[in-house]
Amino acid sequence: MFIINENLEKGTQRVGNLPLSQVRILPDPECPWVVLIPERERITETHQLSEGDQQQLIHEITLISSLLEREFSVDKINLGALGNVVPQYHVHLIGRLTSDRAWPGPIWGVDPVDPPDEALMEQLRQNLKTLCIDTSKTTPATT
Amino acid sequence: MFIINENLEKGTQRVGNLPLSQVRILPDPECPWVVLIPERERITETHQLSEGDQQQLIHEITLISSLLEREFSVDKINLGALGNVVPQYHVHLIGRLTSDRAWPGPIWGVDPVDPPDEALMEQLRQNLKTLCIDTSKTTPATT
Repeated sequence: MFIINENLEKGTQRVGNLPLSQVRILPDPECPWVVLIPERERITETHQLSEGDQQQLIHEITLISSLLEREFSVDKINLGALGNVVPQYHVHLIGRLTSDRAWPGPIWGVDPVDPPDEALMEQLRQNLKTLCIDTSKTTPATT
Repeated sequence: MFIINENLEKGTQRVGNLPLSQVRILPDPECPWVVLIPERERITETHQLSEGDQQQLIHEITLISSLLEREFSVDKINLGALGNVVPQYHVHLIGRLTSDRAWPGPIWGVDPVDPPDEALMEQLRQNLKTLCIDTSKTTPATT
């Protein structure tokens, strides 16, 4: 049974599911920040996913990446699967701004001074919920 | 016609090609560090690749990720497609060590003090060349 890592559970907010992954928001004051967590047990690296899951993952990555570009005025999308702190496999998709606190460096580990932007997060939450609902209508579940 | 970005050309060393991507090494004193550059024009984000190219990309990512795990004593593999400095789409696959200079943070932008480890790079070069040759025998080119 898939159980989400405690730190991912605490640090992010679940908004829905795509066929493979839980879709979660990481609260941030500047950047629309999405975390995809494939609901598979004991996965820490991309190549440990089955070939079918890998292909579904890249599809879900592109769905989120397109959404960030379409709905938010971001300058670049950063994709990362690191797992140095939380080994459970998860993928970050972050809409970056040339004005954000870490630009042009990576933003992981650069803690924000300001509180999360609730309006930004609410917009992201609504966009993602719609995406999850629309996707569930057109894609058979893989689990 | 695909032309590689000048900074990627200067900062990394080409070792071969997989069906979609140029395979390059980023010289580092500690970490086996591979950069995949899909040979497609004007791509800056994952979702701009065609669906076929996306699926080939995740396959090539898993080939490199497996190689890093199999051939090197790394503790974690970091996958990243950032492009904040060099917008031409490229994917980093870095074998990280809990003893490396940036652990557990991201290593992008954390410049090394020591010169590149030539023995490590030579081993990586040979492993990657073998992978590219073996893959070219079994996979039709997508271009």
